[in-house]
Amino acid sequence: MVRNGPSIKLLSRLRTLPPAPRTPSFAPTRPFNAPRHFSRASFPGTADRVYNTRPCIDSFLKPPRTLASYNWVRPVSTHPLPKRRSRLFRFTYRLFAYAGGFILITGGLVVAFFLYDASTYREDLSYTDIPVSENALEPRRGGPKNLPIAEVLVDDDDCPENSRQKHKPKLVILGSGWGSVAILKTLNPEDYHVTVVSPVNYFLFTPMLPSATVGTLELRSLVEPIRLIVSRAKGHFLKAEAVDVELSEKLLEVAQTNAQGEECHFYLPYDKLVLGVGATTNPHGVKGLENCHFLKDIEDARLIRNKVMQNLEQACMPTTSDEERRRLLSFVVSGGGPTGVEFAAELFDMLNEDLGRSFPKILRNEISVHVIQSRGHILNTYDEALSKFAEARFAHDQVEVLTNSRVKEVQKDKILFSQKDENGETVTKELPMGFCLWSTGVAQTELCKRIANKIEVQTNKHALETDTHLRLNGAPLGSVYAIGDCSTVQNNVADHLVHFLRSMAWEKGKDPEKMEITFPEWRDVAQRVKKRFPQASDHLRRLDKLFEQYDKDQNGTLAFGELHELLLQIDSKLTSLPATAQRAHQQGQYLGRKLNKLAQAAPGMTANEVDYGDLDEAVYKAFEYHHLGSLAYIGNSAVFDFNGLSFSGGLMAVYLWRSVYFAQSVSLRTRILLAMDWSKRALFGRDMMNY
Amino acid sequence: MVRNGPSIKLLSRLRTLPPAPRTPSFAPTRPFNAPRHFSRASFPGTADRVYNTRPCIDSFLKPPRTLASYNWVRPVSTHPLPKRRSRLFRFTYRLFAYAGGFILITGGLVVAFFLYDASTYREDLSYTDIPVSENALEPRRGGPKNLPIAEVLVDDDDCPENSRQKHKPKLVILGSGWGSVAILKTLNPEDYHVTVVSPVNYFLFTPMLPSATVGTLELRSLVEPIRLIVSRAKGHFLKAEAVDVELSEKLLEVAQTNAQGEECHFYLPYDKLVLGVGATTNPHGVKGLENCHFLKDIEDARLIRNKVMQNLEQACMPTTSDEERRRLLSFVVSGGGPTGVEFAAELFDMLNEDLGRSFPKILRNEISVHVIQSRGHILNTYDEALSKFAEARFAHDQVEVLTNSRVKEVQKDKILFSQKDENGETVTKELPMGFCLWSTGVAQTELCKRIANKIEVQTNKHALETDTHLRLNGAPLGSVYAIGDCSTVQNNVADHLVHFLRSMAWEKGKDPEKMEITFPEWRDVAQRVKKRFPQASDHLRRLDKLFEQYDKDQNGTLAFGELHELLLQIDSKLTSLPATAQRAHQQGQYLGRKLNKLAQAAPGMTANEVDYGDLDEAVYKAFEYHHLGSLAYIGNSAVFDFNGLSFSGGLMAVYLWRSVYFAQSVSLRTRILLAMDWSKRALFGRDMMNY
Repeated sequence: MVRNGPSIKLLSRLRTLPPAPRTPSFAPTRPFNAPRHFSRASFPGTADRVYNTRPCIDSFLKPPRTLASYNWVRPVSTHPLPKRRSRLFRFTYRLFAYAGGFILITGGLVVAFFLYDASTYREDLSYTDIPVSENALEPRRGGPKNLPIAEVLVDDDDCPENSRQKHKPKLVILGSGWGSVAILKTLNPEDYHVTVVSPVNYFLFTPMLPSATVGTLELRSLVEPIRLIVSRAKGHFLKAEAVDVELSEKLLEVAQTNAQGEECHFYLPYDKLVLGVGATTNPHGVKGLENCHFLKDIEDARLIRNKVMQNLEQACMPTTSDEERRRLLSFVVSGGGPTGVEFAAELFDMLNEDLGRSFPKILRNEISVHVIQSRGHILNTYDEALSKFAEARFAHDQVEVLTNSRVKEVQKDKILFSQKDENGETVTKELPMGFCLWSTGVAQTELCKRIANKIEVQTNKHALETDTHLRLNGAPLGSVYAIGDCSTVQNNVADHLVHFLRSMAWEKGKDPEKMEITFPEWRDVAQRVKKRFPQASDHLRRLDKLFEQYDKDQNGTLAFGELHELLLQIDSKLTSLPATAQRAHQQGQYLGRKLNKLAQAAPGMTANEVDYGDLDEAVYKAFEYHHLGSLAYIGNSAVFDFNGLSFSGGLMAVYLWRSVYFAQSVSLRTRILLAMDWSKRALFGRDMMNY
Repeated sequence: MVRNGPSIKLLSRLRTLPPAPRTPSFAPTRPFNAPRHFSRASFPGTADRVYNTRPCIDSFLKPPRTLASYNWVRPVSTHPLPKRRSRLFRFTYRLFAYAGGFILITGGLVVAFFLYDASTYREDLSYTDIPVSENALEPRRGGPKNLPIAEVLVDDDDCPENSRQKHKPKLVILGSGWGSVAILKTLNPEDYHVTVVSPVNYFLFTPMLPSATVGTLELRSLVEPIRLIVSRAKGHFLKAEAVDVELSEKLLEVAQTNAQGEECHFYLPYDKLVLGVGATTNPHGVKGLENCHFLKDIEDARLIRNKVMQNLEQACMPTTSDEERRRLLSFVVSGGGPTGVEFAAELFDMLNEDLGRSFPKILRNEISVHVIQSRGHILNTYDEALSKFAEARFAHDQVEVLTNSRVKEVQKDKILFSQKDENGETVTKELPMGFCLWSTGVAQTELCKRIANKIEVQTNKHALETDTHLRLNGAPLGSVYAIGDCSTVQNNVADHLVHFLRSMAWEKGKDPEKMEITFPEWRDVAQRVKKRFPQASDHLRRLDKLFEQYDKDQNGTLAFGELHELLLQIDSKLTSLPATAQRAHQQGQYLGRKLNKLAQAAPGMTANEVDYGDLDEAVYKAFEYHHLGSLAYIGNSAVFDFNGLSFSGGLMAVYLWRSVYFAQSVSLRTRILLAMDWSKRALFGRDMMNY
């Protein structure tokens, strides 16, 4: 309300008022609705002008003729009318007032921040005497390998909360990724004595890792100290690697390299163990992977950034031949999944946007980026339209996409791959390269292999199998859980599918055995299957071909038997839930909630002497995965696939993509850092340095 | 101006006005100085209250008795006075108005930033055809070692500016530190074909490096891409290491490791060469330095941060014995100069402020920080009061300062040193340690040693000697300059001192030979000497002792001869200017200006066929060092020594210390990053992660 006239009621009353008496005494009295600053702008001895909602100049040009022509208070002096401050003046005045207010408030906030800052420095020394158990300093030895057993930790008596938890059931969580953090954030801190064991002391926000490889984001913006997350959950942290589990004695064997470079092993006893150790890169039996970079960890991102910069610098040298320069500037990404595609996009952005500012222009002209994909399309788990969009985008950006190509060997300066041409013949090609990223799926870690070998029922080569309550199959019931990339939930897809087909027939009021399905109906079925089993998306891409293939009697419809066979065929291909942050996060949350329920139920069970049977089943439902969608960044544009609702776009999509991850980010700290990094990129570009 | 009364003139006029007529018609007319929003707050039918500068409640409590008690306009209605909006209400109203304005403006700025951000993404491909000289792609071979000679660079024809500079005199600058950057920022870009050669592609803001070791600042906030600085000066950059100089043929031998790991050597021709390669750490002949960390480069800071974190993590392990934990948490700094002291202070801050948040409390109790200093005090180049202050601060913080101690050997887990006790006897002690920083001064780099060996007159073991025009002694006149830590200006201190003594005698109107100097006069002399030769400060600390020592006739005064002897003695100890950023920066600026003058003078000289004699001397004055002062951070306080004006203090001094470096920072980018880092520390503390 920068300008406001009198209220209507007042106005109508004023209109009926008799004219003001012509005493000079009232001359300086300003009409009540004149703006406040006028009192300062007007001069004594000159009469104030009437206030009018029309521009002032208007009434100045048409001097009043009769008293009746005034609606409001009239001027009472016959002095010439003074020149009034224009609307522009008033606008400027208000503008300055608000700008001044803005500056004052901003200044106030800055001062407040400095005061806050001053309060964060600690002058006094932060010593306090604390009791430490003798057992923590000199742990007793035992177990099958006669190792020290860490029954008490050095910080078990640090504070009253810790002392209270000392005798609670011991929950040991392996790993510091999405699953483990989701448990820690869901868990009721009072119920367990929690210890997290991980070889790294941070949580990594994996979905944005490709951005950190070229400096769009900084490394520290993607990581959060795991100790902070653990201590919020009143837990304990050990930076060490789990190497083995003694399932029957409930002892976890942990190894840590000490200052002398020797490996120290010890046992950590547990009541409940959660395996969230993730997965390693899948080598697919290809030779020469030592010549590749990987992108699983923050250190990988740092190495990639250094390597890319190093290649650029070497390409500028006078001793570098033209052929060698082209090789140094040939960047190859093996794997067309989200990680590979996003890395290629980020790399291209950096080379296209920032290189020219300070490097010789010849570099930009000789750069090439290649994506090698074994399937027919990149982003093959996404909707087909999105794959197409991504491919079109890459074609525009001159990022070469080599589909239907399998890498055979990676050498120091080139990569050998076989490619199927249109005639279905396989030709072997080679591509000189200066940098290769290997991002072709996941494989089991050493620890998981060792555990799987100990348990007879664990036959899956790709991951540890759990039941639908996420309990490790074959381990003592309710003692070991597995979540995230290292695990797979035994999927009863086949059962689900039969149930699904029957209910569909029932919906149509038909006998399932005699039901015939047309192509549009099949498309609908496929959509529903995809939604329930997102990992099936890849196998349900070419719906027309599948339909043709299984429609054996060629009558244009699928019989129940044909459809059943088709779906079973797909079921057999489904090995696990997708290896995504989303899945691990949901599993972690589920497990955290269940552990809370178990702790709540424990006193009752002890009272009733219930310590057998399926307690998990009794207290909480089975785990169910809800696929929320997938998204990917593709060179100044992004694609989204939210349960069939798929869309793609340019800059607005990029902002949306960022918003999604911004919201999912683990802490206020990382959010502020992300915002700072994005601003930094806008203001200064990516900094081209390596060290 | 939230509230403003009527202007004084109006007020005085109003006071003489007769009372307003008692017609109801004037009841709603608001006094002219009532605030504007009152028109909306008042209701028709109720009379407006008088406006008064006293609080409204005041006049409400004391109903008017006589008309005369009113100064201004009286109420004209006899209705009961309505309850008015209180001052609080108006204040709140204005507060909301301004807060709304603030939010609007802030929102506007955010939107503007997003619009700007959107404009920074490049959609089109940044290719352009550019000509590249054949000679740049296939350089001819030659020189004493028959290496490729980089006469033309690949970006010599990138843009019209580059093409114009192609045939300008070739200026080659070695190093990317303070000196080199000062030249680049001072140099007129049109006058030379500039090439910068450095093994690193960034400029490092060295004075704040200790802050980066513990995460108070991030690594990237202290470095600026040197390519950006070089390209602003329209120069070229090669990330490579200079290994040798062929002085007579004006060829610089440069080495670069290529992708295959082989060293490629080539020649870079120059017309003028500037050596700004800095210095390396001085080992002082101590054994076992491979067990130490250093702090010269940004990579060093990263390694230190990782090592400190690693020790903390190892100290938490159940297998770590109590003795081993104390060793791991014993941090030793060898060297009590500014770097060592600031590192110890930053380390202590981190351990005291951030450790307790997420690590077991036993760690904090077992930590020890030690500073080993060979002299009698830490910060021995600073004013004595400041040294004392720093020592008191460290005593408060329980940072142990071991003075008069010389490190003899550094072993993997302990450090051996000899210490003089009060009786002057030397005892050898050992200190178990988990981390050792070695920061005990500088020594010559390999390149400088090689150059010094080639030139007979270069006899100084510590640095390359230059004349007062910064030209390398013994090199062809005007072709090679040396600046920064790698160089020393031959100081004619002895000449200066004699001149200085004579002028002092002249001031007093005495015959210099017969002048007697009292102790207060001597103190004055020492002050002036310190100001002119700051490197002498260390030798002029114990003025009383020096006076006693040289006052051989014990008469309480120094004769001219005695004083002369004293000053010569000091002169002999002065080896070089201080190895500081300040010195390198001043030398770089000086050289940049001189090179500009030389380029300006060149056409005239060519016209007059002047190509001999001391051109440098002809165009510009000799270099003179102006010591601006020193400052250091000491654990939530700071000390300053500005030419004798020395002071120290707590948090305000820290803010001042930061302001000084903030102002000196190299670019807007680093300034914003510094501010962000400081805010981050205040909000979230230092992040305790390593990778």
